[in-house]
Amino acid sequence: MMKKTLTLNTNDAHPLINDQKLSALEPRLRAAHQSLLEGTCAGSDFLGWLRWASQDHRQLIRNIREAADKIRAQAQVLVVIGIGGSHLGGQAGLEFVQGVHYNELTSNTKVYFAGHNLSASSWREIIELIGSQDFAINVISKSGTTLEPALAFGFFENILVNRYGRTQADRRICATTDANSGLLHDQAVAHNWMRLVVPDDIGGRYSALTSVGLLPWAVAGIDIEAALAGAQKAQADFLSDLSLNNLTWRYAAARYLLLQAGKNIEALVTYEPRARLFGRWWQQLFGESEGKCERVIFPTTLELTQDLHSLGQYLQQGQKFIFETTLYFDHNPGDELICLDQESSQAWPFLIGKTVDFVQNQARAATQKAHLAGGVPNLQLTISDHSATSLGYLLYFFELSCALSALLLDVNPFDQPGVQAYKTEMMNLLQSSH
Amino acid sequence: MMKKTLTLNTNDAHPLINDQKLSALEPRLRAAHQSLLEGTCAGSDFLGWLRWASQDHRQLIRNIREAADKIRAQAQVLVVIGIGGSHLGGQAGLEFVQGVHYNELTSNTKVYFAGHNLSASSWREIIELIGSQDFAINVISKSGTTLEPALAFGFFENILVNRYGRTQADRRICATTDANSGLLHDQAVAHNWMRLVVPDDIGGRYSALTSVGLLPWAVAGIDIEAALAGAQKAQADFLSDLSLNNLTWRYAAARYLLLQAGKNIEALVTYEPRARLFGRWWQQLFGESEGKCERVIFPTTLELTQDLHSLGQYLQQGQKFIFETTLYFDHNPGDELICLDQESSQAWPFLIGKTVDFVQNQARAATQKAHLAGGVPNLQLTISDHSATSLGYLLYFFELSCALSALLLDVNPFDQPGVQAYKTEMMNLLQSSH
Repeated sequence: MMKKTLTLNTNDAHPLINDQKLSALEPRLRAAHQSLLEGTCAGSDFLGWLRWASQDHRQLIRNIREAADKIRAQAQVLVVIGIGGSHLGGQAGLEFVQGVHYNELTSNTKVYFAGHNLSASSWREIIELIGSQDFAINVISKSGTTLEPALAFGFFENILVNRYGRTQADRRICATTDANSGLLHDQAVAHNWMRLVVPDDIGGRYSALTSVGLLPWAVAGIDIEAALAGAQKAQADFLSDLSLNNLTWRYAAARYLLLQAGKNIEALVTYEPRARLFGRWWQQLFGESEGKCERVIFPTTLELTQDLHSLGQYLQQGQKFIFETTLYFDHNPGDELICLDQESSQAWPFLIGKTVDFVQNQARAATQKAHLAGGVPNLQLTISDHSATSLGYLLYFFELSCALSALLLDVNPFDQPGVQAYKTEMMNLLQSSH
Repeated sequence: MMKKTLTLNTNDAHPLINDQKLSALEPRLRAAHQSLLEGTCAGSDFLGWLRWASQDHRQLIRNIREAADKIRAQAQVLVVIGIGGSHLGGQAGLEFVQGVHYNELTSNTKVYFAGHNLSASSWREIIELIGSQDFAINVISKSGTTLEPALAFGFFENILVNRYGRTQADRRICATTDANSGLLHDQAVAHNWMRLVVPDDIGGRYSALTSVGLLPWAVAGIDIEAALAGAQKAQADFLSDLSLNNLTWRYAAARYLLLQAGKNIEALVTYEPRARLFGRWWQQLFGESEGKCERVIFPTTLELTQDLHSLGQYLQQGQKFIFETTLYFDHNPGDELICLDQESSQAWPFLIGKTVDFVQNQARAATQKAHLAGGVPNLQLTISDHSATSLGYLLYFFELSCALSALLLDVNPFDQPGVQAYKTEMMNLLQSSH
């Protein structure tokens, strides 16, 4: 039997989750799933991601490869400018597959991310990092009217134009934006920039597998066909399985049951630094999809084992309103045999001949056991590896799970009405200070 | 009048915090503060940090500078190995003062951190980063028997010995450990490694301003005397002021009142990437000091403005159990005039002639206003800049605030009995799998 790409183990969440409780939720999960399939759920204008991976993307892949090749041929550095859904998936996917030190280790084109803050000193640092290297810009914004990326783009575009002149600079800019309209679209057309499309029916936080994520990944040498194939496999595994065998049902139901049991905070737990930003993407997905009613899970992240030596005390003996979802790699390439000097070997004789991964896995099991005893239940997701295929698979798994989970709460998974509040206040302040 | 290094504004937490409520807490704050001064509080064996900065550290600074000079003379890379309190303060302080891209931009000795996880692939990446550069190791552990740093040290030490031979390798290792005993101490003595001391009466999470943080900072070119002077100034400002003018009293009291009002989660909000890891240090300080009873604040962090485009929705309309503490830099050197191309200038005419910092500050004000309207109160801490002096000041401010805050909850601020649980489970699993 073929090994599964992803497994979910809820044993360390008993008795809050058991077969009987899961079965009781089955009719509601089925209704939610049906409403997604039939396009009758709340926010159904934004269901493009649901069957995205199984569409014929040969032309899209050609377009992205062409843009990536052009960028790689003329630039040692690509600056990717975006915020929220136009940022997190791209950066998270890059680190997931290529590691946290990609830029320092690659002989390929480096990829820096900007536009997700208002920190001029951090933009200036990127310019210092670029130094005399040639660079290009990928600006990502559906409309072009989000302030942070617009300001960062203005900053980097100005330097690009000063360095290369307007005409050559225009050949070094790729805009990922609306197909037909908007400020950024119009600029891109006027200047004849490379253009890629943010689909109309896919919201920002569900857009990692569109041009939004695929271009930066392609520039960084990630196999984007494999990423899409991974998502397609997840779609095949989960979209037509209307049963409790469906892992998206089980994960959505588990979250629901834990919330009902007073577990208000979900911590995505990772053991590998390369998965840290994936946790940030996951935080947006769930926080922004569900955070629209009073009784809803607050998503946070934990980096283990380091956080066992910081928040571990809290988890063990603090407030009992947390549960953990561990995202574990079944296989880490490049595992190492443990190496201890003479003195340390005497302290830990039982570690001789073991691998670091083995110890990591024992630490995971021990943590789950200790935390469960301390009132922190655990859901364990094991993904086969950190390949592009697994990345695509995992993105789709969480996207579908999140949609189902929000629908269980009677929340529209695809809008974000509350994000406007600070934008409106900010524009008021900026205009009144004029 | 001289400008203050730090200010605290609680206006955006009204009416949950007001003068009357603060006054009601005054006797308890006074008693907690007195018990710290007199050494009669719970955990009073670990009060070394309280007057640490005002001690005569001329010899300590000479020792650290000597070790740092030796390391810088023989190594282009220093690998610092530690976890929890032996890791977070050092790395957070380095990024706070030198920025997130220090290693990529410096012509000085680079500093990588390891030992805070069980990820062999991340250690292997550091070896790739080192490449053919000369390197040295600073291993930090009070006892030497914490598994994560011990395994990472074994890994890096082995490579060091293979490269330089035992004798030369021994000259490239500096152990920061107990003065008199323990596995690491004994190894350091046996091999004649450089040695620095973790004081007996200062716990890990309060140790950033000891050799634990000072050596990595000195290697990275940070003015360690300025850091200690900043802490000394904070001690002068806060330790002898037994009144509600004391900012540590006000911050501790504000947290207490917000918790009583049902705000169970505190998010430390930063606007500059260089402050992200400082938030992680702060998370350990409060989480590990206070997380010992059922009703206690869960500390988390937010990176703005990016998280407004991910968790912003949740903050605005989700569960109302969060408050924010903003850590804001009053002055960012290297601020930039806003630069917009022709099309964008038409969209935002009121931004012409403004600086990015100005917009950041308006975004901060807008966010606090919007979040307050959404039921998320805000405490605003403004620190003058990201100098070494401000770093030291801020570390001491939070340390004293945290001790007072824990004592208000009748919790021992200085122990961590719950951290043992996973360690015990892990050792059981590892030994039984032998």
